[in-house]
Amino acid sequence: MADPIFKRLCLIGIGLIGSSIALRARRDGLAESIVVYTRRKETLDRARELDLGDEYTDRIGEAVDGADCVVLCIPVGACAAVAERMAPHLAAGAIVTDVGSVKQSVINQIKPHLPEGVHLVPGHPVAGTEYSGPDAGFSTLFDERWCLLTPEAGTDIQAIETLTKFWQGLGSTVDTMDANHHDRVLAVTSHIPHLIAYNIVGTASDLEEISESEVIKFSASGFRDFTRIAASDPVMWRDVFLHNKEAVLEMLGRFSEDLSALQRAVRWGDGDLLFEHFTKTRDIRRGIIEAGQESDVPNFGRDQIEE
Amino acid sequence: MADPIFKRLCLIGIGLIGSSIALRARRDGLAESIVVYTRRKETLDRARELDLGDEYTDRIGEAVDGADCVVLCIPVGACAAVAERMAPHLAAGAIVTDVGSVKQSVINQIKPHLPEGVHLVPGHPVAGTEYSGPDAGFSTLFDERWCLLTPEAGTDIQAIETLTKFWQGLGSTVDTMDANHHDRVLAVTSHIPHLIAYNIVGTASDLEEISESEVIKFSASGFRDFTRIAASDPVMWRDVFLHNKEAVLEMLGRFSEDLSALQRAVRWGDGDLLFEHFTKTRDIRRGIIEAGQESDVPNFGRDQIEE
Repeated sequence: MADPIFKRLCLIGIGLIGSSIALRARRDGLAESIVVYTRRKETLDRARELDLGDEYTDRIGEAVDGADCVVLCIPVGACAAVAERMAPHLAAGAIVTDVGSVKQSVINQIKPHLPEGVHLVPGHPVAGTEYSGPDAGFSTLFDERWCLLTPEAGTDIQAIETLTKFWQGLGSTVDTMDANHHDRVLAVTSHIPHLIAYNIVGTASDLEEISESEVIKFSASGFRDFTRIAASDPVMWRDVFLHNKEAVLEMLGRFSEDLSALQRAVRWGDGDLLFEHFTKTRDIRRGIIEAGQESDVPNFGRDQIEE
Repeated sequence: MADPIFKRLCLIGIGLIGSSIALRARRDGLAESIVVYTRRKETLDRARELDLGDEYTDRIGEAVDGADCVVLCIPVGACAAVAERMAPHLAAGAIVTDVGSVKQSVINQIKPHLPEGVHLVPGHPVAGTEYSGPDAGFSTLFDERWCLLTPEAGTDIQAIETLTKFWQGLGSTVDTMDANHHDRVLAVTSHIPHLIAYNIVGTASDLEEISESEVIKFSASGFRDFTRIAASDPVMWRDVFLHNKEAVLEMLGRFSEDLSALQRAVRWGDGDLLFEHFTKTRDIRRGIIEAGQESDVPNFGRDQIEE
């Protein structure tokens, strides 16, 4: 086991991401001690039952007190309020980071509250499942997944390096990029896919002459893939859309334009256009499999799982 | 092993579906002999190497001669031409069926060519993977999946019953419905999901300031799920859209309307509307899992597969 990277790691929020960080950090000794903070008593009790930390508290000042790293594992929309409440208690030299899917808004929300000498290094582990809460975590969630750090220019290099080591310890490959660029990339690889998945599942459940039971019965024809994403945490995703509005609206505009072109091809029977489009999209999947970001087993291997 | 249901089963086309039928029919003795027809010599040779049938031919007259069941396992758009060529050689009393994802068009294409005394019972196994060709088949593809038969009123009851038994033998649960209703249900559970998956993958690969390698690297955030569907066979899917135009355009209209409402909520910061929508879609997935049409393992279990 390597030397601990942090003496006192404070997790603010203990859902899927927070509990997965806790489990991996404990497994591999990445922190000398872990403090778990969460607002709801039931969640805190559950975290204790699952043995996710060394200390548990619902008082944020107590939680961050003396911590050399504070990780906000909460919906993006809650960052400003939490930052404001914890700020007076932060230790000098502490690293404050987060795991949100939107980065510029997180910087805007947290930065104004932080005292001098505290290092803000926003982060986003590109990993997750459709489940949420402290029971959903597992220690290998971040293995072979990217973690993106989006520190502003002028951020303490040592703080960035320490956090990079921590995420590598959690299993990730770390990359650093500009927060705005992050938000545009993720709008297309994550936010728009979620919005259209939520949307098609809604459309399908609202049809007059087709029953919900028919949609469910015949879902293996493609639809069920979308329902996984559309089962993701509603609060987290509401906040993502509210806090990455500009990039989401722009990418949605492009998506709709492109869809209109396909729709027109269907209406006018332009088989060549459809064939050409459907052919080029195959290469992207090949690239994702080759990059180790996806399994090449048919149907994601779902039919091979023993339940 | 049960008694064979057919004496001479003729498979027209030997891709994912044709080869899966062949493998299961051989495994469980559902046919005394299997004749494999396909147009391309290399595919026929490959089918022979894989030992998928008892006879192999690229002459359609020879293939259907004496067959008591002929299954068209070809793209929907090829049905009329194949029906015309095989019709003069069909045996009296034979069942002609297919596996296409669109049903009214298949009836319109095949029916005019069939001689008296041949029974048309169109079929659609709601099963598949993103792979195609004779190597993609496996004997359990249809297990626990629905197969929909869409015979017209007045179709020979015995023929429907025999084909029902055959699909049950292949592992499916069989349901019978009107061809037009089928096409509307599948438009929403299958055709629109494929079109929007193809579309978002196209949109993502066309961005100026975001490279394809970034899209690939960060695909685990949602996008990669869509690429599986968008890697499906382009000819098959081109034909589906060309031959189910009306239902596809109607469902696409509904999808776009609903997406506009979500887009408006994002623009105007209507978090309540987003939250409400994102909450109701969770139930649909629960229904699909409970109906045995999906695994409840996180991320489809893709991370648990040993490759």
